[in-house]
Amino acid sequence: MIRFGIIGAGRIGIVHARSVEKNLGAQLVAISDPVKEAREKLAEQYGATPVETAEEIFGNPEIDAVIVCSPTPLHVPHILEGVKAGKYVMCEKPVAMKLEAAKQLQADLEGFDPKIMIGFNRRFDPSFAKIHQLVEDGEIGPIEQLTVISRDPAAPPKEYIAVSGGIFKDMTIHDFDMARFFLGDITEVSASGQNLDPELADTGDFDAAVIVLKNAEGKIATIVNSRHCAPGYDQRLEAFGPEGTLFAENIRPTTVRVSKRTHSDALDPYLDFFLERYEAAYSNELDAFIDAIDGKRPFTPSVDDGVKALEIAEAASESARSGKVVEL
Amino acid sequence: MIRFGIIGAGRIGIVHARSVEKNLGAQLVAISDPVKEAREKLAEQYGATPVETAEEIFGNPEIDAVIVCSPTPLHVPHILEGVKAGKYVMCEKPVAMKLEAAKQLQADLEGFDPKIMIGFNRRFDPSFAKIHQLVEDGEIGPIEQLTVISRDPAAPPKEYIAVSGGIFKDMTIHDFDMARFFLGDITEVSASGQNLDPELADTGDFDAAVIVLKNAEGKIATIVNSRHCAPGYDQRLEAFGPEGTLFAENIRPTTVRVSKRTHSDALDPYLDFFLERYEAAYSNELDAFIDAIDGKRPFTPSVDDGVKALEIAEAASESARSGKVVEL
Amino acid sequence: MIRFGIIGAGRIGIVHARSVEKNLGAQLVAISDPVKEAREKLAEQYGATPVETAEEIFGNPEIDAVIVCSPTPLHVPHILEGVKAGKYVMCEKPVAMKLEAAKQLQADLEGFDPKIMIGFNRRFDPSFAKIHQLVEDGEIGPIEQLTVISRDPAAPPKEYIAVSGGIFKDMTIHDFDMARFFLGDITEVSASGQNLDPELADTGDFDAAVIVLKNAEGKIATIVNSRHCAPGYDQRLEAFGPEGTLFAENIRPTTVRVSKRTHSDALDPYLDFFLERYEAAYSNELDAFIDAIDGKRPFTPSVDDGVKALEIAEAASESARSGKVVEL
Amino acid sequence: MIRFGIIGAGRIGIVHARSVEKNLGAQLVAISDPVKEAREKLAEQYGATPVETAEEIFGNPEIDAVIVCSPTPLHVPHILEGVKAGKYVMCEKPVAMKLEAAKQLQADLEGFDPKIMIGFNRRFDPSFAKIHQLVEDGEIGPIEQLTVISRDPAAPPKEYIAVSGGIFKDMTIHDFDMARFFLGDITEVSASGQNLDPELADTGDFDAAVIVLKNAEGKIATIVNSRHCAPGYDQRLEAFGPEGTLFAENIRPTTVRVSKRTHSDALDPYLDFFLERYEAAYSNELDAFIDAIDGKRPFTPSVDDGVKALEIAEAASESARSGKVVEL
Repeated sequence: MIRFGIIGAGRIGIVHARSVEKNLGAQLVAISDPVKEAREKLAEQYGATPVETAEEIFGNPEIDAVIVCSPTPLHVPHILEGVKAGKYVMCEKPVAMKLEAAKQLQADLEGFDPKIMIGFNRRFDPSFAKIHQLVEDGEIGPIEQLTVISRDPAAPPKEYIAVSGGIFKDMTIHDFDMARFFLGDITEVSASGQNLDPELADTGDFDAAVIVLKNAEGKIATIVNSRHCAPGYDQRLEAFGPEGTLFAENIRPTTVRVSKRTHSDALDPYLDFFLERYEAAYSNELDAFIDAIDGKRPFTPSVDDGVKALEIAEAASESARSGKVVEL
Repeated sequence: MIRFGIIGAGRIGIVHARSVEKNLGAQLVAISDPVKEAREKLAEQYGATPVETAEEIFGNPEIDAVIVCSPTPLHVPHILEGVKAGKYVMCEKPVAMKLEAAKQLQADLEGFDPKIMIGFNRRFDPSFAKIHQLVEDGEIGPIEQLTVISRDPAAPPKEYIAVSGGIFKDMTIHDFDMARFFLGDITEVSASGQNLDPELADTGDFDAAVIVLKNAEGKIATIVNSRHCAPGYDQRLEAFGPEGTLFAENIRPTTVRVSKRTHSDALDPYLDFFLERYEAAYSNELDAFIDAIDGKRPFTPSVDDGVKALEIAEAASESARSGKVVEL
Repeated sequence: MIRFGIIGAGRIGIVHARSVEKNLGAQLVAISDPVKEAREKLAEQYGATPVETAEEIFGNPEIDAVIVCSPTPLHVPHILEGVKAGKYVMCEKPVAMKLEAAKQLQADLEGFDPKIMIGFNRRFDPSFAKIHQLVEDGEIGPIEQLTVISRDPAAPPKEYIAVSGGIFKDMTIHDFDMARFFLGDITEVSASGQNLDPELADTGDFDAAVIVLKNAEGKIATIVNSRHCAPGYDQRLEAFGPEGTLFAENIRPTTVRVSKRTHSDALDPYLDFFLERYEAAYSNELDAFIDAIDGKRPFTPSVDDGVKALEIAEAASESARSGKVVEL
Repeated sequence: MIRFGIIGAGRIGIVHARSVEKNLGAQLVAISDPVKEAREKLAEQYGATPVETAEEIFGNPEIDAVIVCSPTPLHVPHILEGVKAGKYVMCEKPVAMKLEAAKQLQADLEGFDPKIMIGFNRRFDPSFAKIHQLVEDGEIGPIEQLTVISRDPAAPPKEYIAVSGGIFKDMTIHDFDMARFFLGDITEVSASGQNLDPELADTGDFDAAVIVLKNAEGKIATIVNSRHCAPGYDQRLEAFGPEGTLFAENIRPTTVRVSKRTHSDALDPYLDFFLERYEAAYSNELDAFIDAIDGKRPFTPSVDDGVKALEIAEAASESARSGKVVEL
């Protein structure tokens, strides 16, 4: 039984609290959040102790493992403190707001034997994981083209966008990790940003984008992003190889097909939002973290994976601005 | 090049005229119909000679093969005259209005070497034919259950229903033949009729029905019929065996999927009506008829197939009335 | 917070224990089973007290509600004892092995104010429930034809079949309830049994069947059953009305589509088995039971629903034997 | 009745001969090809006169309209001669091998009133045309992102590639036209080429590519190309707008779904190849050409459309080489 502390009782903290609760190998000990109401509500719901500061989590000897769900600027210090306190650490993406800070973290971790996993939950989505496994099994030969359609149902509030680090670090970062999951290290980045929603025009950020990534063997990943999507949270992925194509369709809440005079077999809109869409992924991610703690698998995705996704994100920003391929 | 005459310039005559025209091994010589306007219009469209009577078709030495598209009560005499005139004959379903008449035809044909094919076009539908082939190839083992959903988009005029011979002979006859195509001879028939449409209440005929057929080995075919269907001409079939299931979906005019806030991946309504839905089937049926003429395959479905489908139809009527299984 | 006791630590007891554990409004107090190992294992897993007898559940004042998961012959006594002990009772299907016993239960319950729900979990499946809601909303007009395909992945052991009460009471009972859920009371039953699997020939029970049900307005439900199905647990349902068709597709573990040289868009086999396929249904069923306890909805499906499903099951047996429609 | 001459009896000439034959408003008069066997075979099959030179087509006063199916380097002279001879001209894509030559054609056509249509047949595919119509009808609001997956089943012979003008002019040219069909004029082109097939390494041409196009309003088209695709001719297109998504799926020869122990609902491989996949498109294209001749619609796609697609193709070549966005 691994005993967990969660740092941050916000939206993503709730997701992880629920995963821990459902996991028969995990127990939730404490939840920290500077906001009294948030930490108390969540703690009560899951029978944990609410504490104000992350330090109280790190200092608690009854806690084996920490899930860092604090705001992005605090990820680096929280990871570092967690490691120094001898905890296993799972940290939400992105590792840091700036690549520099993430690299500094890597430097600071030298000499330790860190047990850190970065929360790229999509690697653990049953459909994406199955495609990855089929590729590993040689089902379609080596991937030649990966196509990712990734659209949020609706843009977050402008205040969120302002501090989000921009679409590439906030949203596409997941897709960059998926590209690396399937193609390995990326060597060339080419990005085109779009400003489609007039409401978001003055955020200074793109609200849609297409990004083309290439690895050293010339395999390409194409990512199509948008901050909005009428039928819901659009999350599709296709791996194409010489022997076939593997495609992951969207998920709907039911399997009902409606046929009328005007159309046939209409399905539900897509499952909204990441909480529901990736519920299994978050749950499997926690299983994987516990397996890593139990020595059954390495701690991946690692800090290095987090750094490399950030590297691609910064390259994408530069490419979208310069109109040139950026080499890594 | 086989030279064809068509008897009857009605709806189904038009279907066959078009098939003959498109077939590179067939040539349309003459079309007969007592209605001047109908025969002239169709004949002109396909560069054939319009004639008033079937006798002018049978007596024409330039005609090798005849397609009988006359009203059902004339099928038996037209088949017989055609055979006596030495023509190859393809006749639309059903063979006759009454089983007795069809059996009399069989008796009358004794002593001849008839080359007759009955127009159960669905055997030649690419999807149903593929399922049949896969079953022959052993893909799912011997069929245990066959399920046929067969719904017309809208009921024909009441005047048509009055002379149609009833839903079992007019509409389900196709499904009875499909049951025999997949399961062979049927030994037990159980039918339940429905009267759903108040408009059709006084026709004395059912406008929907469910029929359960069993063969000597206990394999079952279930047929679900309706004279109306909002999303169009609903034509599905499923063969179930110990090793798998083979299902034929409906056909749509395009592959477009529409996703909106309220639903996702809505397809077109089903392809209407039998002319379009079974265009390939009619075309392949003609190919098969020509292949039979060329000695490449037997003349099937045969008159015997037509008689046996009628037998099931009459048994279904009796069962729907008596509430008892009728044995054949 | 409703405090639960579960009677029976077998396969279905495990399902309910899990549902109770996940439900934030429910708490599992005790589990009874005569088999020591079974009750202790399950009780430990969910932090409940293992007890040997049902009486210890009924006599425990800390228990508000009881879920009866005992063998079918014990359902009637357990329901009765539960009601007499003042507990809310949810009982697995079927209510009894024999219709007579179920009717006796109804008689015995007179004078009490029983709070009983029968475990026809499929009413709570998200897809079936959505179709029911759409029908209630008038989306397709009144249902004219209901078609249910319901096939188990593989037959249970012969020993189970021997005490199961037969396919109609053991397996089709769910489909009978679905027919009643959509069409209300059934007035005519026509059934055809099949013996397909030679292994099961000497059980004296059918291993497949087709059943046609009619209600007083002439609406028909067709049920196609089989004890085996190669691609998995086949659970489909289609409601057909004058304005459209509503269809519930099978569920797969992932949304992956595999395309190769030989085929395209192959999906996973169907989700196996009822534990996984109906996980959401069991969970929603418990929510509904708790809502009924809280007075937010009636206790349905009721004992009367259980009795009427049994009535249909016995009529189906009789019809399959006699080859005649049985009227209710 | 429009009387047609076809120049070129190769693969694409055969496609058009068949379309003319099936079209009730069209008659095939003559077919020219320097290869005696080719022209005679095709002419005989469709009851037309075989002639050696294009000049015999242009000089034939019985011919109203010409379909230019000659090798690409001859397109420009044949279009010009056709116009000068007073014929209606439909010419296959691309207009020319080099943009320069196409622009020279435009200059040479000044002063004439040319009736020319360029054979971008995909605009007439029923599914793509329906999406275009739905967009025009405002179904999803203005398109924000267009995604085109376009993969050939297998690479053409190396000898063909050597004279094809390269992947962008030979293959992607269709997708460039589709991008313009949906988004109008393109202002920015960014392309990434791939060399995946070692067999094709020494052709000096890419065998796969991803191209990102932007129009003046910042709307993006993403094109994913490959010269091979195991499950067949992969032709999908998705239009995404603020109110929804419109997707065109691939076409299969049948609607059969195969379910086995290992998978469910496997469909046929995609319909191969452009002859079959786009049969309806070629047929509708001819209808549109005849409608244009009859004054019912303009002659589009026009030479200008052909020139602009070529412009994008040359920009794509440049971008793939330089790693920079090319502005038009």
